[in-house]
Amino acid sequence: MEFSSKLLENAVKEMSQLPGIGKRTALRLVLHLLKQPKEQTGFLSQALTTMREEVKFCLSCHNISDNTICEICSNKSRDHSVICIVEDIRDVMAIENTGQFRGVYHVLGGKISPIDGVGPSQLNIFSLVEKVKLGGVSEIIFALSSTMEGDTTNFYIYRQIQDSNVITSSIARGISVGDELEYADEVTLGRSILQRVPFESAFKNN
Amino acid sequence: MEFSSKLLENAVKEMSQLPGIGKRTALRLVLHLLKQPKEQTGFLSQALTTMREEVKFCLSCHNISDNTICEICSNKSRDHSVICIVEDIRDVMAIENTGQFRGVYHVLGGKISPIDGVGPSQLNIFSLVEKVKLGGVSEIIFALSSTMEGDTTNFYIYRQIQDSNVITSSIARGISVGDELEYADEVTLGRSILQRVPFESAFKNN
Repeated sequence: MEFSSKLLENAVKEMSQLPGIGKRTALRLVLHLLKQPKEQTGFLSQALTTMREEVKFCLSCHNISDNTICEICSNKSRDHSVICIVEDIRDVMAIENTGQFRGVYHVLGGKISPIDGVGPSQLNIFSLVEKVKLGGVSEIIFALSSTMEGDTTNFYIYRQIQDSNVITSSIARGISVGDELEYADEVTLGRSILQRVPFESAFKNN
Repeated sequence: MEFSSKLLENAVKEMSQLPGIGKRTALRLVLHLLKQPKEQTGFLSQALTTMREEVKFCLSCHNISDNTICEICSNKSRDHSVICIVEDIRDVMAIENTGQFRGVYHVLGGKISPIDGVGPSQLNIFSLVEKVKLGGVSEIIFALSSTMEGDTTNFYIYRQIQDSNVITSSIARGISVGDELEYADEVTLGRSILQRVPFESAFKNN
């Protein structure tokens, strides 16, 4: 692509570094900014820079936070003895949106994936094991995605904490609410039958 | 969506103002930036702000440029008597990429579209008519997209310059090179037969 302006070329180059944004999309976005008032570009740049420079990660759960301890971890009305292990902060947001969980989280920051060069030491696993060893934790809920990497990570963590007196659980796998049975994959459908729940409890809390 | 950080929320809000970027995509992009070195966010913000503040539009053709007159308009080896009318700078880049055009451009900045509230006065039409009136122009090539708005804009401009001694032409419409005839729409196929070209010229310049 030939650009008539170095400034434009540079803006498109930087924009297309973002995942899923190719050169053409980047050009469309940048030309959109050019048609908008200058303030909009200013606000965007400012918001990104400030966020990147000043955002903190909660010392306890590694969630993104404006303070050293995040709002969830510093909330005294939550049950700090139940810890839900998630991959990243998007999962925290998703679970928080359900309003069904009153415990706290532990954000791993990824999954063990030898192909991508991610080992246990790059994840926030050590601090979780320490937390469990220190006591005061009654249950660990594994809420990673059920892929090869997710299961590996779950199992790695499970082995580290299995000697402690902590209940370990996994989020339920089954047919999504509203889904047709005939379109469900075999593994999910099979599990949903094996791990069936008492009829009355199926309608609790929704 | 509930954010654990105001900084993050603000960054996502600004990012999702861009066209085609929803809240979820914006969050994904922002979290990507958080995983990258701080410099990347700095470069992106800097590139966008500098571009928005300092980019100029060529006084002659209204193309984006680093100077008051763009590289194409200031290039003496190009034919300044042939002007190709395009909608925006992406069209200039597309035509330049073909390497087949040695004239200059005139960027309208849009199409006449009453539904979107875009009238002739919002487009760079006046400066084009002035250019033609001043003389020195031998041919005007209409290269807008062939939609209702494109045709309206073409016709509006055509009426303003039809009294001058300028040749007017339109880019050829027809079956794309490599396309199957059976999948072509009727209007395009019909036109490609009516506006057929001598066999020898079909292989020129490609």
